[in-house]
Amino acid sequence: MKLRDVGEFGLIERIERIARRAAVRGGSGSVLLGIGDDAALLRVRAGEHVAVSTDALVEGVHFRFTTQAARTIGRRALLVALSDLSAMGARPLGVTLALAAPAGLGVRAALDLARGCADVAARAGCPLVGGNLTRARVTSLTLTVLGAVPAGRAGRAGRALLRWTARPGDRVFVTGTLGGAALARVRAERLRGRLRHLPPLRLAAGRALGRLAARGACIDVSDGLVADLRHVLRASRVGAELDARRLPWPRGFRAACARLGLDPLWTALAGGEDYELLFTLRPGGPGPTALARRLGAPVTELGRITRGRALRIVGPGGRVLEGPAGYRHF
Amino acid sequence: MKLRDVGEFGLIERIERIARRAAVRGGSGSVLLGIGDDAALLRVRAGEHVAVSTDALVEGVHFRFTTQAARTIGRRALLVALSDLSAMGARPLGVTLALAAPAGLGVRAALDLARGCADVAARAGCPLVGGNLTRARVTSLTLTVLGAVPAGRAGRAGRALLRWTARPGDRVFVTGTLGGAALARVRAERLRGRLRHLPPLRLAAGRALGRLAARGACIDVSDGLVADLRHVLRASRVGAELDARRLPWPRGFRAACARLGLDPLWTALAGGEDYELLFTLRPGGPGPTALARRLGAPVTELGRITRGRALRIVGPGGRVLEGPAGYRHF
Repeated sequence: MKLRDVGEFGLIERIERIARRAAVRGGSGSVLLGIGDDAALLRVRAGEHVAVSTDALVEGVHFRFTTQAARTIGRRALLVALSDLSAMGARPLGVTLALAAPAGLGVRAALDLARGCADVAARAGCPLVGGNLTRARVTSLTLTVLGAVPAGRAGRAGRALLRWTARPGDRVFVTGTLGGAALARVRAERLRGRLRHLPPLRLAAGRALGRLAARGACIDVSDGLVADLRHVLRASRVGAELDARRLPWPRGFRAACARLGLDPLWTALAGGEDYELLFTLRPGGPGPTALARRLGAPVTELGRITRGRALRIVGPGGRVLEGPAGYRHF
Repeated sequence: MKLRDVGEFGLIERIERIARRAAVRGGSGSVLLGIGDDAALLRVRAGEHVAVSTDALVEGVHFRFTTQAARTIGRRALLVALSDLSAMGARPLGVTLALAAPAGLGVRAALDLARGCADVAARAGCPLVGGNLTRARVTSLTLTVLGAVPAGRAGRAGRALLRWTARPGDRVFVTGTLGGAALARVRAERLRGRLRHLPPLRLAAGRALGRLAARGACIDVSDGLVADLRHVLRASRVGAELDARRLPWPRGFRAACARLGLDPLWTALAGGEDYELLFTLRPGGPGPTALARRLGAPVTELGRITRGRALRIVGPGGRVLEGPAGYRHF
């Protein structure tokens, strides 16, 4: 059955039911009014700021129905969007989904996109509170996530984690592992397999980071460790020294890269789409073990923030992989 | 020059500049952090709820570059999105823009879309605080507007204007005029002219309505007066009686309809896309003149909310245009 057979209102009704069930599973304490009126209403606590971020995934650019299950695409879409809230240290309030799809798309596929979003909405406690449905020649999902950040006494942005607050002497950390997303992408392309890899959910880690007195800057790794660290360095007007030998690779990563002819070091440094948190802490903060416990996620210390604007990455044998002159490899 | 010639970051930078200039013109008191970090941060006052609504406009479905100037399309997109905030009685906090466009779109056109949004953002005091830019085969704009509604003591949804709160005995009103949007659409199609018609900005009217003790239900007229009134009636479990002879037509409307062979009555009742506020007030509220002054917009009383679920519309000569059996005309 295709979308043209059920019509706009039929599909909206079914998506509403999916959203409601997910809200029951995942909690919806912030929702005063969900789907169905001119706008949704969300409750923000006194002394909280609202964080908002929008992400769009387009068929043929960011996903393909031929290589990913529709439900996986939906899950991935919300996980990617939520990564921005994690990187701000925000607690999720709700998400809106604008779905554009051709009339010839299968109803099952369209609902699976919504179900995938709902799966993550329930798990993350970020209910689907509204949206929009429209015809288009190509399928796309545009998700806008709303979160809340304690205003605190920490300046204009309160306790939000920002990009421009790294300082010389800060230690540089990353959660989880790097390179797994790029490896999965290449593997799916070359072996024509299904792409099942999903970004992690780092909301709790981001909020825990926001509560640390030693917190510096934070960003999520979407473009790749090097590219995203450069965003932080530029915004904070500082440099950094990283030790690539410490890079946290996923299990079996080196062997899998070897089989595909990939350089594991650069796949982890520049692969992108890992959606882990890259952050800095002032000197004297908790050590890696205490930090991992507080964040509820594996944490690796990669290096330090330095004066000047250069990024210097040292690899195996003390070899400089990247210096002030820029990329040596890609 | 095409989008592919400037690249993603080049375009984002230019859109940021457009957004910043508009924020300076329009005020941005609610913006703690605008475009440039993982999320924007907005300030909500103590005792306010957050309203959120998403709208998407797709090339070939909702607009065409051949019949509308890009800047008009951008203006229209944000005016349509803001209409949902007006209908909730919300004050605007900010808007995010997800722009999808082919690499072959002209830079001028892409920037004009953003400039159109920025024009309305400045006028409405609803700054552009974030967004997303992606490649796609077809151009589309997805706008998510955020607003704030006083929580007050008026139940779970506070002082928000809702659809399900009409009661028998309520008087039914509409702001502005009806039918103008449909007339402009037909005229542009048949005469191959430019479509310049823009929805009104009813934010102040919506907020003023929210402050009225006599307020009932409210919705914006997007699908057409009859269709949107039906939404209110269904949600509120009531009926209504309207007098179509009172319909507020735009100046010169009857003659223009005659020239195009349109029935002015049905063009105004069912044409859609007028984005005026359709609302009800409890008996004994202010009269039309006082009401128009408080709302800062023309107001017309069209009829009453009744018990039962029927919509009855009386036309010229007391003829019933529409009864419980449904549409007589379309």
